[in-house]
Amino acid sequence: MGLASRTCEPCKGNLSPLSREEAEGMLREIPGWELEEGATKIRRTFRFRDFAQAMAFARKVGEVAEGEGHHPDLTVGWGYCGVVFQTHKIRALHRNDFIMAAKVNALTP
Amino acid sequence: MGLASRTCEPCKGNLSPLSREEAEGMLREIPGWELEEGATKIRRTFRFRDFAQAMAFARKVGEVAEGEGHHPDLTVGWGYCGVVFQTHKIRALHRNDFIMAAKVNALTP
Repeated sequence: MGLASRTCEPCKGNLSPLSREEAEGMLREIPGWELEEGATKIRRTFRFRDFAQAMAFARKVGEVAEGEGHHPDLTVGWGYCGVVFQTHKIRALHRNDFIMAAKVNALTP
Repeated sequence: MGLASRTCEPCKGNLSPLSREEAEGMLREIPGWELEEGATKIRRTFRFRDFAQAMAFARKVGEVAEGEGHHPDLTVGWGYCGVVFQTHKIRALHRNDFIMAAKVNALTP
C-alpha cells in the first residue's frame, strides 16, 4: 500500500526519529521532495501560474493537514507554494512526515 | 485619509523606491511592521491559536492582495502567519507596500 493512502499515527509517547538512511530510503517514495537541515525536515516547492493558484494549493494542503492533525510550514507567494514537514515534537523526521508528503503529492494532477 | 483606505497605484513606468528615511516615516502608520533586508521589505508576523486560524488569516490576506493586484510572500504554520511585502519589480519598497500593510492590519480585530 502506498504512503499516500496511509494515516498518520498519533504522535504520543516515545517517537523515534528516522535515521538519515531511513529518511533517504523513504524519500524515493515521494518524488520531488528533498531532505533539509541535517535530515530533520523534508521540503518540496510547487510552482503555479499566479498567486491565486498557489494559495488554492496551500488551502488544499491545509485541509489534508487538518484531516491528519499533522501540519506543515508553508511559504506562499506569486507562483509558488513551498511545503515543509517536520515532526515538531522531536524536531526530526518521523514516518508521519513522509505520509503527509505523499498525500500532498497526490493533490497534484 | 488613512493608508488602509487608499488603493495601490498601478505598478507601471518608472517606480521610484522609497528611501530608508521615507520608509521609516511611513512605518509609524503601520504598527507591528518592521523593515527588513536593508529597508527593501516590510514584515509582520501575526500569531494565532492554531493552524486553521493562521490559514484563515492567510486566505483573507490573499483576498485583499488579489483585490489590489499586489501580492505578499506568506509563511504559514501552526499558530503563525508571516506577511512580507516588497514591490518585486523594483526589489524595493514602494508606497503600495505600506498601503497593503495597512489593509492587512485592518483585517485584525
